[in-house]
Amino acid sequence: MAEYRAATPDQEAFRSAVLDAGLLIDSGVPGVYGRGVVFDDVYSAIDRRITAAAGDDDAERLRFPPLIPREQFESTGYLSSFPHLAGSVFGFDGTEAEALEQSERADRHEDWSGFQTMGDLVLTPAACYPVYPAVAARGPLPPGGLTVDAGAAYVYRNEPSGDPARMQMFHQRELVRIGEPEAVAGWRDTWRDRAVGLLKGLGLDADLEVATDPFFGRSGRMMAASQRQQELKFEVQVPIAGAEPTAVASFNYHQQHFAETFGIRLADGGIAHTSCLGFGLERITLAMFKEHGLDPATWPDRPVRELWPD
Amino acid sequence: MAEYRAATPDQEAFRSAVLDAGLLIDSGVPGVYGRGVVFDDVYSAIDRRITAAAGDDDAERLRFPPLIPREQFESTGYLSSFPHLAGSVFGFDGTEAEALEQSERADRHEDWSGFQTMGDLVLTPAACYPVYPAVAARGPLPPGGLTVDAGAAYVYRNEPSGDPARMQMFHQRELVRIGEPEAVAGWRDTWRDRAVGLLKGLGLDADLEVATDPFFGRSGRMMAASQRQQELKFEVQVPIAGAEPTAVASFNYHQQHFAETFGIRLADGGIAHTSCLGFGLERITLAMFKEHGLDPATWPDRPVRELWPD
Repeated sequence: MAEYRAATPDQEAFRSAVLDAGLLIDSGVPGVYGRGVVFDDVYSAIDRRITAAAGDDDAERLRFPPLIPREQFESTGYLSSFPHLAGSVFGFDGTEAEALEQSERADRHEDWSGFQTMGDLVLTPAACYPVYPAVAARGPLPPGGLTVDAGAAYVYRNEPSGDPARMQMFHQRELVRIGEPEAVAGWRDTWRDRAVGLLKGLGLDADLEVATDPFFGRSGRMMAASQRQQELKFEVQVPIAGAEPTAVASFNYHQQHFAETFGIRLADGGIAHTSCLGFGLERITLAMFKEHGLDPATWPDRPVRELWPD
Repeated sequence: MAEYRAATPDQEAFRSAVLDAGLLIDSGVPGVYGRGVVFDDVYSAIDRRITAAAGDDDAERLRFPPLIPREQFESTGYLSSFPHLAGSVFGFDGTEAEALEQSERADRHEDWSGFQTMGDLVLTPAACYPVYPAVAARGPLPPGGLTVDAGAAYVYRNEPSGDPARMQMFHQRELVRIGEPEAVAGWRDTWRDRAVGLLKGLGLDADLEVATDPFFGRSGRMMAASQRQQELKFEVQVPIAGAEPTAVASFNYHQQHFAETFGIRLADGGIAHTSCLGFGLERITLAMFKEHGLDPATWPDRPVRELWPD
């Protein structure tokens, strides 16, 4: 079992307020929530706002489920960097007698894990992962490459926390740029400004920071230092609950990593570069409730009210 | 590993056509697909059409992620009826040395399952499952009960198949009625007609049938017979690919099962009844392409064109 990270008092108070207001619905497992209608309305409005901001990108819309093939996942090296965050899907393939014993144990809430075996699927760790093999399968990129709008996709992180902004299952609103290095870097730079502007436009106190991924273990510290030094990851951070601001959007520049793994070629035969941008939709929604209050009917007219043109 | 069910020649031909047209995107694992923009447009239009048809229900909109707490799942008895279809989420909680060995095995596509342990979550087996504990937590129902619109929720079935209409991860567009037995039965009867009309209105050859769930094993055959005799399950079936029509919507009447499991009380203190209605959104979308052709621009003006009022 992954270690539970307790909430700070600020986070606990905000979590209670959000649950009491029916914005989120407690499932009983930390970081797994249902969403009430008011939360869902704000969430959807933010998603539409991002879609509008992406209008200039002429992105191709693709949608992927929250499970990806285990074999592809193995090829990405995710288990080397983030073994603690991954989730794999197990299932039953036994006899009737074993099924009976399994269900009897489950009825008593006893351990039935011994009847489960690993299957062909893992939980999607980041919304861009299924994009790369799908694009690679088409053959070489067109000149100028490609931008993919992967929509609001569920991703999983095995990190139970009492902070309502740190969910185990949440939506990344994802855009992916694949192409020549300069095109990819230029896209990322344009979006850094655009993302900060979009979030400030929602009345949020957004800051851009060079950031690192939560790599596992001692060797992970070196990977993080190298990532920071090369400025491969940026985050837009806003205050939600607690002293530390929370990342609500992140830009990752993968250089040739994914293109090499899955074989994405440029029009001229060279290896493509890739970069992705993910907005944490639940986090941005929570930040809105924290900043402007739990009842959207009382929110300021501008700029926030424009979210709901109807 | 669950047994692979091969496609019939008709299903295989339709699958190839749908992939070649870019409507679905092959992931490499049977029954797990990405969706292209044309598929997604039709899918979304059908989702809106169902939302419009549900307008009279005054349903409360709730949304839930594709994972539910294992403990709740254990309480439902799902593992007794459908052990072969369930998926459980495992994760890593080991040392740095173990993480290294796990990732080295994964790099070589060897077995790394021994490093994974069962966590607190399972894949959502049906879109109505998280609704019951959420409603139970509120206390007794208001008089007349409650209707919940659980939206288009991802659900998992461990049944790899070559039939493109039999997916492992797909969306159920779900409505749930909870209340007095007569109110629940009346709601189901109203929706049986409404659902058939809605699907016929899309130009599909829809038929209502008494149906059974795919219960596991020998004792499952008795459960299926009892379910059929009591007419607890109905399906709306349409032809997609192959000789047998495919269920694209199903009504399940659970009587007191879920209300008793999670403690959902009527206003007068009695145990509630529950019924759910799920539309298989990907299946309906596939049926549209099979019936009307792979290019929506060539679809007949009426009644299908009305799906896209813009």
